[in-house]
Amino acid sequence: MITIKDGGVTSPKGFRAAGVACGLKGNRKKDLSLVVSDVTANAAGVYTKNVVKGHSLQLTMNRMETPRVNAIMVNSGCANACVGEQGYRDAVTLTQKLGELTGFPPETILIGSTGVIGQPLPVPRMLEGLELACRQLSYEGGHDAEWAMMTTDTVPKEYAVESTLEGHTVRIGGMAKGSGMIHPNMGTMISILTTDAAISAPLLQKALRQVSDRTFNRVSVDGDTSVCDMCVLLANGTAGNREIVSEDGSYEVFVKGLLAVCEQLARMLAKDGEGATKLLEIIVKHADSQNTAYAIASSVAKSPLCKTAFFGQDANWGRILTAAGYSGAIFDPLKVSIYLGDLMVCRDGCALPFDEEQALEILKKDEVTVTIDLQSGMYTDRIWTCDFSYDYIKINGSYRS
Amino acid sequence: MITIKDGGVTSPKGFRAAGVACGLKGNRKKDLSLVVSDVTANAAGVYTKNVVKGHSLQLTMNRMETPRVNAIMVNSGCANACVGEQGYRDAVTLTQKLGELTGFPPETILIGSTGVIGQPLPVPRMLEGLELACRQLSYEGGHDAEWAMMTTDTVPKEYAVESTLEGHTVRIGGMAKGSGMIHPNMGTMISILTTDAAISAPLLQKALRQVSDRTFNRVSVDGDTSVCDMCVLLANGTAGNREIVSEDGSYEVFVKGLLAVCEQLARMLAKDGEGATKLLEIIVKHADSQNTAYAIASSVAKSPLCKTAFFGQDANWGRILTAAGYSGAIFDPLKVSIYLGDLMVCRDGCALPFDEEQALEILKKDEVTVTIDLQSGMYTDRIWTCDFSYDYIKINGSYRS
Repeated sequence: MITIKDGGVTSPKGFRAAGVACGLKGNRKKDLSLVVSDVTANAAGVYTKNVVKGHSLQLTMNRMETPRVNAIMVNSGCANACVGEQGYRDAVTLTQKLGELTGFPPETILIGSTGVIGQPLPVPRMLEGLELACRQLSYEGGHDAEWAMMTTDTVPKEYAVESTLEGHTVRIGGMAKGSGMIHPNMGTMISILTTDAAISAPLLQKALRQVSDRTFNRVSVDGDTSVCDMCVLLANGTAGNREIVSEDGSYEVFVKGLLAVCEQLARMLAKDGEGATKLLEIIVKHADSQNTAYAIASSVAKSPLCKTAFFGQDANWGRILTAAGYSGAIFDPLKVSIYLGDLMVCRDGCALPFDEEQALEILKKDEVTVTIDLQSGMYTDRIWTCDFSYDYIKINGSYRS
Repeated sequence: MITIKDGGVTSPKGFRAAGVACGLKGNRKKDLSLVVSDVTANAAGVYTKNVVKGHSLQLTMNRMETPRVNAIMVNSGCANACVGEQGYRDAVTLTQKLGELTGFPPETILIGSTGVIGQPLPVPRMLEGLELACRQLSYEGGHDAEWAMMTTDTVPKEYAVESTLEGHTVRIGGMAKGSGMIHPNMGTMISILTTDAAISAPLLQKALRQVSDRTFNRVSVDGDTSVCDMCVLLANGTAGNREIVSEDGSYEVFVKGLLAVCEQLARMLAKDGEGATKLLEIIVKHADSQNTAYAIASSVAKSPLCKTAFFGQDANWGRILTAAGYSGAIFDPLKVSIYLGDLMVCRDGCALPFDEEQALEILKKDEVTVTIDLQSGMYTDRIWTCDFSYDYIKINGSYRS
């Protein structure tokens, strides 16, 4: 498996994309994103578990009951959520228009929206935007499509890899947006993934579920879960490989590639968390059960006290142990050891003298690993998150206005 | 029931208190707090549910198996947690000394500690501090005792009320500390409550459990729960009323008084949350079940996105509905109405045009009520919390150093 330089959703064969501005963001930034497959693709999706769901997402989920897809449009600047029945009708109108413009049946067209809740989509301007986007569709359009999905993201998040399946070159590419309101589950943001591999729809769904549980569902920025989050994976089969229809060696190679793409995107999401100054990887080892490992990692990753201490480069392991303690998981505090990077700061639940200078060197870096070793079982889990800075408050104190 | 002006733990008869400085905080601020009852009191306690428990708390919990208490000492500046067996021994040493100084048996003496985790108590200095504190014990010492418990608190939190029980004047007083790391359950901070009412130990425990569930356990600052949190209530019976031994009218009057004291302290705790600029009261009405009401109130109260929006005085009700949606509770989003103060901003899950100026007037105040009406059942719950400001980051980015 190799990484494709500057890769993204148009790295796999047979995918075109575009990103245009139609005034949704109130400035001239791109805000309407389009990805189109030359041939109808098998599709898989994972979605937010929030009880409240945006109208665009509802339409997408309905259409995905038949997972055959030709195109996806995503707008930023407006969530198309909580605006009543008009919201669903708007989503239908927009995808119908895209169907007319591309010649594909509307039921094979998906839509995602992200941004402010409670405001209607400016449909007329978006219809014009769709015309422009369709004219600009290109096999190099992946980056433009990513920029048009971004909201408070500060950097684009794209990745692609290439593998070989029985002599055929197969590519998997992806893009993601989202920096606040990211938390398991799902889905945790909007991501569009593409592949030219031929793979059956059920196995595609299985692969995406498996991989997203280990990647996107292991990212936490602020514990909030959006009403619009989704991840959709399209497989258009243009690579020419024999269709993967069972969990054989080819399936394993495919999952490995998908995991590489999603893990990179997940890390980028955490690192670009709103106001983040560093990526934190919280690892729980030797837990009695998977649930215990997850509960503790999640509790530490969500703790504002831990996250502000990391921002302050303060080796305050007491807060880490405290967050583990209130996670709801049952464990023996007197067996817990805690490491910042490779530096052990707590052994058997007890303070350990350590070199503060060395701790500071570790905490100054823009990627910090925290390991909590429960010394009791064989289960491991891991969550990526970021620190909590002044900028998080600044960004979110006035997002709507 | 009347409120006692400038009341606190020494408002009830037969309680003396003191607060002294012995260098735990690294400045000359008071850091050792003492409350002593003239006669042995019945006692009740509620404690943190954190799996990790501080050594002082462990000793207190052990001693409370026989709930007869003469004195409580509380130090700030050091949590006496995660320092190994020495921590428990230190707690024993300190309470033994206090026993010698007061003439009470050590098993009737409790200890609480709050502050940084992983550092040992400076016992010799504290032994000197105890001597000084005992010399300064007075029937007006409540305020000093409160100041000595405070850590990042910016204002003291004290309250007392007076009721009449069958012709006898009965008082209940209390003090509390805690501004970060406050969240249900328990307990959520250190609080000492006193009363001169005569009431049996089992009923005292029942009353405290009942009242703390509706007050202290309904406060959330950052979702973190400390390893040292406790609330202890002493009833020394010096008011002369007939001992309350059943849930009769006198018990009801007592509970009402206790509720008044604890509710005031709880509100003060939320309002003085680290970096807080306002008190938020999150009310969930007409829920299908108590669990649903609580889950939603708690989810909104913990959401960093909601809390930063309140800091920014931004009427971003979409974030409130979103936090309700990922609370884990099942409800119909299309029935939800949301109010900021008296202003309805969302009806039946749908955006409502509202006067932004009027919303700003409401959000500018230092106390804001948010009501989430599920329009489906008969259950209500409520949580007090605060907004998330730059100062929260500042305070917690460098607490330890």
